[in-house]
Amino acid sequence: MAKIGDTLKPFSTQAYKQGKFVPVTDADVGGKWAIFFFYPADFTFVCPTELEDLAGIYPTLQKMGVEVYSVSTDTHFSHKAWHDSSPAIGKIDFFMLGDQNHTLATNFDVLRDGQGLADRATFVVDPQGVIQLMEITSEGVGRNAAELLRKVKAAQYVAAHPDEVCPAKWEEGEQTLAPSLELVGKI
Amino acid sequence: MAKIGDTLKPFSTQAYKQGKFVPVTDADVGGKWAIFFFYPADFTFVCPTELEDLAGIYPTLQKMGVEVYSVSTDTHFSHKAWHDSSPAIGKIDFFMLGDQNHTLATNFDVLRDGQGLADRATFVVDPQGVIQLMEITSEGVGRNAAELLRKVKAAQYVAAHPDEVCPAKWEEGEQTLAPSLELVGKI
Amino acid sequence: MAKIGDTLKPFSTQAYKQGKFVPVTDADVGGKWAIFFFYPADFTFVCPTELEDLAGIYPTLQKMGVEVYSVSTDTHFSHKAWHDSSPAIGKIDFFMLGDQNHTLATNFDVLRDGQGLADRATFVVDPQGVIQLMEITSEGVGRNAAELLRKVKAAQYVAAHPDEVCPAKWEEGEQTLAPSLELVGKI
Amino acid sequence: MAKIGDTLKPFSTQAYKQGKFVPVTDADVGGKWAIFFFYPADFTFVCPTELEDLAGIYPTLQKMGVEVYSVSTDTHFSHKAWHDSSPAIGKIDFFMLGDQNHTLATNFDVLRDGQGLADRATFVVDPQGVIQLMEITSEGVGRNAAELLRKVKAAQYVAAHPDEVCPAKWEEGEQTLAPSLELVGKI
Amino acid sequence: MAKIGDTLKPFSTQAYKQGKFVPVTDADVGGKWAIFFFYPADFTFVCPTELEDLAGIYPTLQKMGVEVYSVSTDTHFSHKAWHDSSPAIGKIDFFMLGDQNHTLATNFDVLRDGQGLADRATFVVDPQGVIQLMEITSEGVGRNAAELLRKVKAAQYVAAHPDEVCPAKWEEGEQTLAPSLELVGKI
Amino acid sequence: MAKIGDTLKPFSTQAYKQGKFVPVTDADVGGKWAIFFFYPADFTFVCPTELEDLAGIYPTLQKMGVEVYSVSTDTHFSHKAWHDSSPAIGKIDFFMLGDQNHTLATNFDVLRDGQGLADRATFVVDPQGVIQLMEITSEGVGRNAAELLRKVKAAQYVAAHPDEVCPAKWEEGEQTLAPSLELVGKI
Amino acid sequence: MAKIGDTLKPFSTQAYKQGKFVPVTDADVGGKWAIFFFYPADFTFVCPTELEDLAGIYPTLQKMGVEVYSVSTDTHFSHKAWHDSSPAIGKIDFFMLGDQNHTLATNFDVLRDGQGLADRATFVVDPQGVIQLMEITSEGVGRNAAELLRKVKAAQYVAAHPDEVCPAKWEEGEQTLAPSLELVGKI
Amino acid sequence: MAKIGDTLKPFSTQAYKQGKFVPVTDADVGGKWAIFFFYPADFTFVCPTELEDLAGIYPTLQKMGVEVYSVSTDTHFSHKAWHDSSPAIGKIDFFMLGDQNHTLATNFDVLRDGQGLADRATFVVDPQGVIQLMEITSEGVGRNAAELLRKVKAAQYVAAHPDEVCPAKWEEGEQTLAPSLELVGKI
Amino acid sequence: MAKIGDTLKPFSTQAYKQGKFVPVTDADVGGKWAIFFFYPADFTFVCPTELEDLAGIYPTLQKMGVEVYSVSTDTHFSHKAWHDSSPAIGKIDFFMLGDQNHTLATNFDVLRDGQGLADRATFVVDPQGVIQLMEITSEGVGRNAAELLRKVKAAQYVAAHPDEVCPAKWEEGEQTLAPSLELVGKI
Amino acid sequence: MAKIGDTLKPFSTQAYKQGKFVPVTDADVGGKWAIFFFYPADFTFVCPTELEDLAGIYPTLQKMGVEVYSVSTDTHFSHKAWHDSSPAIGKIDFFMLGDQNHTLATNFDVLRDGQGLADRATFVVDPQGVIQLMEITSEGVGRNAAELLRKVKAAQYVAAHPDEVCPAKWEEGEQTLAPSLELVGKI
Repeated sequence: MAKIGDTLKPFSTQAYKQGKFVPVTDADVGGKWAIFFFYPADFTFVCPTELEDLAGIYPTLQKMGVEVYSVSTDTHFSHKAWHDSSPAIGKIDFFMLGDQNHTLATNFDVLRDGQGLADRATFVVDPQGVIQLMEITSEGVGRNAAELLRKVKAAQYVAAHPDEVCPAKWEEGEQTLAPSLELVGKI
Repeated sequence: MAKIGDTLKPFSTQAYKQGKFVPVTDADVGGKWAIFFFYPADFTFVCPTELEDLAGIYPTLQKMGVEVYSVSTDTHFSHKAWHDSSPAIGKIDFFMLGDQNHTLATNFDVLRDGQGLADRATFVVDPQGVIQLMEITSEGVGRNAAELLRKVKAAQYVAAHPDEVCPAKWEEGEQTLAPSLELVGKI
Repeated sequence: MAKIGDTLKPFSTQAYKQGKFVPVTDADVGGKWAIFFFYPADFTFVCPTELEDLAGIYPTLQKMGVEVYSVSTDTHFSHKAWHDSSPAIGKIDFFMLGDQNHTLATNFDVLRDGQGLADRATFVVDPQGVIQLMEITSEGVGRNAAELLRKVKAAQYVAAHPDEVCPAKWEEGEQTLAPSLELVGKI
Repeated sequence: MAKIGDTLKPFSTQAYKQGKFVPVTDADVGGKWAIFFFYPADFTFVCPTELEDLAGIYPTLQKMGVEVYSVSTDTHFSHKAWHDSSPAIGKIDFFMLGDQNHTLATNFDVLRDGQGLADRATFVVDPQGVIQLMEITSEGVGRNAAELLRKVKAAQYVAAHPDEVCPAKWEEGEQTLAPSLELVGKI
Repeated sequence: MAKIGDTLKPFSTQAYKQGKFVPVTDADVGGKWAIFFFYPADFTFVCPTELEDLAGIYPTLQKMGVEVYSVSTDTHFSHKAWHDSSPAIGKIDFFMLGDQNHTLATNFDVLRDGQGLADRATFVVDPQGVIQLMEITSEGVGRNAAELLRKVKAAQYVAAHPDEVCPAKWEEGEQTLAPSLELVGKI
Repeated sequence: MAKIGDTLKPFSTQAYKQGKFVPVTDADVGGKWAIFFFYPADFTFVCPTELEDLAGIYPTLQKMGVEVYSVSTDTHFSHKAWHDSSPAIGKIDFFMLGDQNHTLATNFDVLRDGQGLADRATFVVDPQGVIQLMEITSEGVGRNAAELLRKVKAAQYVAAHPDEVCPAKWEEGEQTLAPSLELVGKI
Repeated sequence: MAKIGDTLKPFSTQAYKQGKFVPVTDADVGGKWAIFFFYPADFTFVCPTELEDLAGIYPTLQKMGVEVYSVSTDTHFSHKAWHDSSPAIGKIDFFMLGDQNHTLATNFDVLRDGQGLADRATFVVDPQGVIQLMEITSEGVGRNAAELLRKVKAAQYVAAHPDEVCPAKWEEGEQTLAPSLELVGKI
Repeated sequence: MAKIGDTLKPFSTQAYKQGKFVPVTDADVGGKWAIFFFYPADFTFVCPTELEDLAGIYPTLQKMGVEVYSVSTDTHFSHKAWHDSSPAIGKIDFFMLGDQNHTLATNFDVLRDGQGLADRATFVVDPQGVIQLMEITSEGVGRNAAELLRKVKAAQYVAAHPDEVCPAKWEEGEQTLAPSLELVGKI
Repeated sequence: MAKIGDTLKPFSTQAYKQGKFVPVTDADVGGKWAIFFFYPADFTFVCPTELEDLAGIYPTLQKMGVEVYSVSTDTHFSHKAWHDSSPAIGKIDFFMLGDQNHTLATNFDVLRDGQGLADRATFVVDPQGVIQLMEITSEGVGRNAAELLRKVKAAQYVAAHPDEVCPAKWEEGEQTLAPSLELVGKI
Repeated sequence: MAKIGDTLKPFSTQAYKQGKFVPVTDADVGGKWAIFFFYPADFTFVCPTELEDLAGIYPTLQKMGVEVYSVSTDTHFSHKAWHDSSPAIGKIDFFMLGDQNHTLATNFDVLRDGQGLADRATFVVDPQGVIQLMEITSEGVGRNAAELLRKVKAAQYVAAHPDEVCPAKWEEGEQTLAPSLELVGKI
C-alpha cells in the first residue's frame, strides 16, 4: 500500500467532470492539495451517500485550494451514465476518474484480491505529491466528510507552520503545540 | 502495509498495564474487537494528547467489548516510567505495548524508514483477527477519538447485521441501508 | 490468445440476467454449446448495435442448444443500469457477465494493453469446453449475427457428422463433402 | 496468437503467382491492405472450396487496393503442381505463399501443435502492417468470402473516417455512427 | 545429427504407399533393416532421379529384408498427388513419409536452417534400430543406389559374421578380413 | 556433427607426409578442395585397405586440385612408424594428421563416445571451407574410393555450373539437369 | 560482529548531552579516541550502576582525549526523561545516543535476536576509527570501569610507542616489552 | 564472531597437557565452565606474560569447576617445544590446544585476515556450551587474569541465582540487585 | 591432480602384455601394490629409456608384490607395434595400457593442455587403491627406476610397521624412527 | 595441485634465515632456479632428517644458482625456536618460510584436508617461475636429496640445451639424446 510519505505514482486516465470527458494524469494533480476518494462501484449503495457527503464539502475544499478525485474501477462512460440517472451523484462537480485499467487502485494498493473493485479508501496528497493522510474502512462502513475536512485543515496548518503540531481532535482556530526540549515528558 | 481484510500476524511482547508488566501475544488478542493505536515515541508531544483522548473513550469501548493496545517502539520499562511521570499518560488503563523489536510496526508496515519510529496509525481488528478499519496521519496531525468510536460502532453494527450497511457519517441509532437489486442505480 | 482447440479456463463471476443477479462459473457453461461475446464497454456506441443484433438470434440459438454470454469489463451493477436505461440493451435476455476483475478477458487473451477494456471478440465453445470458432474485429467494425449463426450451424453439423466437412459459405441444408483418398487433388 | 493491433512480423519466402515463382517478404506487403488466408494443406477438401470462393472476390478486392496471400505449410513447388492439376485452384490469380519453414504460421501463432499444418485462419492487415480483423474456424467449417468482403469494407471505411464507426452487420452505403458524449447511454 | 550407433527416435506420421494412406511410427520400423532416404521437396529436379534410381533396387532390397522410407517435408497428400502425376515417381512402391511437422528431419538433424527442407541424406538402420551407415550430399549432387546397395550388403554381412570385417570397395562374394593380434601392423 | 554447409573449424596439429613431420592448420587447408578421411586407428584392419584404396586415386585428385588428409587419434610418431613398417601404408603420399588431442574428431563430431577413436568418416570441403559431402560407415564396412571420386567430380561440376544439377548416379561427361519452372512436376 | 581492526561504520542519530539534544554522526567521532558503551535499556537495573561507574572515570578520560558515547535502543527523548528522573543517571555528562533505529547495534552486531535490545558491550575506537578493544558480558554481569581505564591507557601507550607492547595486567608506569628476534622463545 | 548466547561449535584437535598429547573435542568441553584463551603465536612476547598470568589463577578456577584451554594456530608439537624451553610457559598445567587447521579460530571468528594468527581473545562458556563473556584486545595490549576471575565469579553467581544480577565492578561477597517493577526508573 | 591419499578412480581399457591383448580395469588393480607409469608417446625418445630402466626392476617389483602399468595416450595396437619393432621396448613384460580415450591421464590429472599427451608421471598406489607416492618431471628429464624402487620399499615398510617412519634417503635394512613425545624437538 | 608448466602464484610471508627474520614474496623468488620443500610440522620426526639431508646439498645448489625454501604451516617464530634448539635444524642456512596462513600450501595444493599440515612435497621452479619437477611422498617416507640434485642438474641441462633430452637415470656428464625424425621408433 502507499504509505504516508510516499510520492504519487504516474497514471493517465479519463474523467467525467461537469458534462465533459477530460483526460487526467499525475502531472495534472501536482501543485495543489488533492484528495483521492476510492469506492467500490458505480450504481451501488454506500458509495453514493459518501460521494454526496463529499460533494457537500467540495466548495469549502476548493476555497482551501484542495482538488477532489473520486475513483472506481468503472469507466468514465459508466460515471456519466450514473451522473445522468442518480440525483445524489448528479450533485457532484469534482473529477470522477475511470480506473477500469486498475492503475490507480494498484498504485495505492487498494485493489481487492480477486474482485476487481477498489477499497473504500481516502488519500490526502500535498502539493509536492506526498501522501499526508489516509483512511480505509471495510465494505459496510461509510466515511465522514466532516472529519476528513478537519484533518485536511490540520495538515495544511502544520505545512504552513513547520514548528507547530496539532494535538488530538484539533479544530481550526484551536491552540497548537510547539515541540521543545522542555516539553519532553511534561505533557 | 496491512490491508483491510488481512489477518493479524503473530507477535509476542511485554506490556505495561495498570502497574504491572504482562506478556501479550496475538493469541491474547483474538476473540474480541481490538484497537491497535500506534504513535511515534514516549515523552513526546502530540502523542500524549492522542493517548489521553483515547483514554477518555476507553470505558465506553470496554462496555462494547473492545480492547485497546497502544504501541510505540519504546520498551515497557519506558512506558512505565512515562506513566509514572506524566499526568496525561497516568490516566491510561489500557495495554501499553513495548515494540522495541519492531515486530508490530513491521507486521502492520508502519515503521518509518530510517527512523525506528512508528507512524501515527490506528487499526481496528475484529474478533476473527481481521482488519476492518485503518487510519494514518502524518507527524503533526492528531487523531480524533470520537470519530474512531463512531466507526467502531458502525463496524460492529454491520458485523451484527450482515444484510445492512451504514451510509456516510452514520451515527449510532440512525437509519442504515439494505442493499438490493432494486436499489441499484436508485440512490 | 485462446486458440482453436484450447479448453475453457476456470472463472467465477456475477451476471445480470432477466432482472436478477446470478453467479456464473465455467462449470455452469459446460455440457452445452456456448458463445462468449466480448465488447469494450457499457454505455458506448457500436456495442449496443451488436448486442441488439445478437439478441435477435438468441431464440434460434436457444432452440439449437446454444447459450450466450456477453462480457465486458464493467460490473453486473453497471450491466443492470444499462439494461434499465437503454431500449436496445433492454431486449437482451442472455447472460451479461461482469468482468471487472479481467479474468475472462485474460483467459481469452483479449484485454487491450493499458486500456482495461476487452476486444470486440467472439468465441464459440462446444459442449466439451473446446473452442471451435473465433472472430475479432477492430474498434470501429461491428460483427454480424447472421454469419455467426451460419458458422455455429456448420460447427454443430460437423460435430454430429464426423466423416463430413462443410465447404466454403455452406448454409444449412446444402451439400457437404466426405473426405477420401480419391478426392485428393480432385477438387 | 497475433492480436488485433499487432504489427506484421518479418518473413521471407517464395510464392507461386500466375505461372511464376516470386519471392515475397514483409516489406513487399506494406503500404496496401492485405489478407493472409491460411489453410491446412494443398490437395485436400475444404481448402479448395474456400480458395475458389476467395478467388471470386479477388477482382473486387484488387479494385479496393487489397492484396491477397494464401498460405499453407506446403512448398511453392507443391502450390504450382496443385494449380496445374486442379480446376478450382487453377482460377487463383493471387499469391500462393510456400510456408514449409513454418515462419508465417508461427508469426501468426496458427500452427497446430504436433501436426505441421496451419489453422483455417484469416487476418486482415492495414497499410501500416497492423492487424485489424481476424477469424479462425475449426477443421471442418468453411469460411465465407462475402462476409470477409463486408468486414474489409467496414475496416477501410473507419480508417478513412476516423470519427465514425460501423454498427453491427453494416453494409457498404448504410449509415454509420459518430461517437459523442451525448450518445453515451442513449443507444 | 544422428551419429553412427545412435538409436532411432520416436516418430508418428502418415505415408502414401501403393494407393493408400497408412500410418507409420518408429515401432513399425523395428525388427528389419531400414533405409531412410531424405530429399528436399516433391515436384523438384534431382529428387525424382534419385527416387527412381532407388525404386530400381527396391525389389532386391525387399528380398534382403530391407524396407525403404523416402522422406520430405511435404504432406502425404502432396506425395500422392506427385505419384499420380509423375511417371518416375509413379514407379515407387515403397513408403513415402509425410514430414510436414519436421519430426523426422529434426530427429536425424538434417533440416536446413531457415528453409524448412531436408538435406539429401541417407541413413541405414539395422533391425535393432541402430544407425549403421549414413551419407549426405549437397543440393546439386545426386546419390548412387548401386553404391548404397553395396554398403547395405556389407553391413548385413558383418552383422551376420561378427568376427569378420569388409575391406575397402568390398563386393558381395569377395574375401573379408578376420581381425587378430597377428594382423596388427601387418596389413 | 558437422553438417552440410558448415564451415571448417580451427585446428592445429602435426602431420607425417613423405618422410617429414609438418605442421598443418585450418589456414593451410583453405583455397583448395580437401578430403578429410577419418579412420579408427593405426595398425588395424579395414583402415589400411581403405587408405591404400584412397592412395590409388590420389594422383587423379591432385590433378583435380583436391588435397587429401587422413586422420586418426594416433600421433604423427605412430603414423611414421606405421608408414615405415606397412607395405600398404607405405604407398601413401598424402597428409597423415595426428589427432591425439581429439580436436579434429571433435570438430567434425565423429569421436566415438568412450573409445577415444574416430568413426570411419569422409568429409569433402570446398575451397571456401564449406562441407559439401559426407559419408560415415560403421566399424566393419569399408568405403569405396571410386564412388568418392564420382561425387567429388559432381560437386566440382555444380560448383562450376551453378545453374545445373547432377542427377542420380551421374558420371563425368553425362548429361545434367537445368532446374526451371517448367520442370516442376514433370520429372 | 565488529572485529578488532574493523573501521567504524556510518551512523547518524540524536543524542542527549547535558540538557540538549544534539545530532551525532560517525564523522563527529573521528579524530579522537572513543568509547561506545552499549547497554540493554533505560530505566532498568544493572545498566545505571554501569553508567554511574563510567561517569566516575569520565573526567579522567576527557583529560586523556577520550570521548564517551553510551548507547541503547531507546530514543533520546527517553534518555532525557531518565536523566531527569534518576539520581545515578543524572550524573552523566557524556553523550547518550538514541538508537531506536538499531543502526549502531547492528553496525557493531550486538543486537540480541528477537529482543530489540543491545548486548552489554564496550568498544574502544582509536582516532582513525579502528576498533582496538572490545568486551561483552551477559545480561546479569556488570562491567568494571577501572579495568576499562587500564586497557585504554595501554592502547594509547602502544599507539604512541609502536615498538613496545604492554604485558599482561600492565598498569600505567609499569615496564613494557620491546619485541625483538632475541626475545623469541625467551619469555 | 561468536556472540553472547551462541553455542560452542564442533571441533576436534590435539592438545599438550602436562607432558602428554591428548585429543580434545567439543564433547570433552561440555558439562563444565570453560575458558577459551586465544593468543597469536608461540614463542612471542605478550603471549607468555598473559599465559603465565592465567596459570596463576588456574588452581582457583579448578576449584570453581572451570577448565582452561589456551589456543593458538601452532601445532601441539610446537606447544610442547615451547613448554620445554620457556620458564613462563613451563608453569602451565592447563590444556594447550593446537589449532593449525584454524578450526577454533574460525569457529569463534577471531582469525586475523591474511595472517593465519588468532586475535588476543577470551571466551567464557557455561556448562551448556553457551558463551557468557568475551573480551578481545589488540596486538600490544595484555589482558588481566584478575578481572577475568571477577567476571567468571559473577557469571557463576547469576547462573546460580536467576533472580539476581551483579552490578558494575561487583566483587565476590558484595551485594547484588533483584530486578523488580518497583526498581524501574529508581536506580 | 590426484593427491596423496586419493583413491584410484574407475577406468576400463585394453593393454598389451606379453603377446596378448587383455582388458584391464580399476578392479583388476586392487589388492596389490601398483605403479602407474605415464609417458608422452610411443615411438619417441626419453620414453623408451625410462621404460627399459623400469623393465630392469620389474622382476624385483614382482617379488615384492608390486604390479606395473605403463600408460600413454596411444592405443594398444600402437603398443604392440612398438613392442614388435623396438629392442628396448621388446624387453617389457608388464602391462602397457592404451589410453587413447584419455581416461587415465584425466583421472590422475596429467593430461597436458592442448597436446593430447600425458606428463612423465609416476604414481604408486597401495593395495587399498590409495596413492602413496607421486613424481612428475618435465619433458626432457628422465626418471630413475632405482630411486623409485627405494621409495616403494620404504612405503611398504611403513605400511607393515605403522609405528615407524623412514627418514631421509632411507635404504632397505637401515634404521627407522619411532615417533614419540620424547622425540619432539629432539631431532 | 600445481601442475608441471604452471606458474608460481603470488605469496607474501616471513622467513627465518641465518639469525634474521626476512620478508619473502614471489617477486623475490623470480630470476633464479628455486626449490620449494614442504614438510608437515616443526619439532617432528622425518622432517628434520630430510631438512638436514637437504642442508647437505645446499652449498652445491647455491653454486648452481639454485635457491632453497623450506615450508611448513608453522610460524617463523617457531622456525627460529626449532633452529635454536635442534642440532640437525641448526645446520640449515636456507630460507625457512612461515606458512601459518596456508597461502603456499594452498597455492601448490598440498594442504592435507582437515589437518592444517602440508604434504611432504618438493617443487622445482625455473627462473621464469615455471614448475619443472615435483615429487610427493606419504607421511612416513623420507625423500632423497641426492636424487633431487640429479634431477635439478638434468632440468638445468635441458634448459641450457633445448635440442637435447636426458634419458632415464642420467647423471651429470653422461650422454644425452637429440630427438629427430630418424630416431622415431628406433630406440
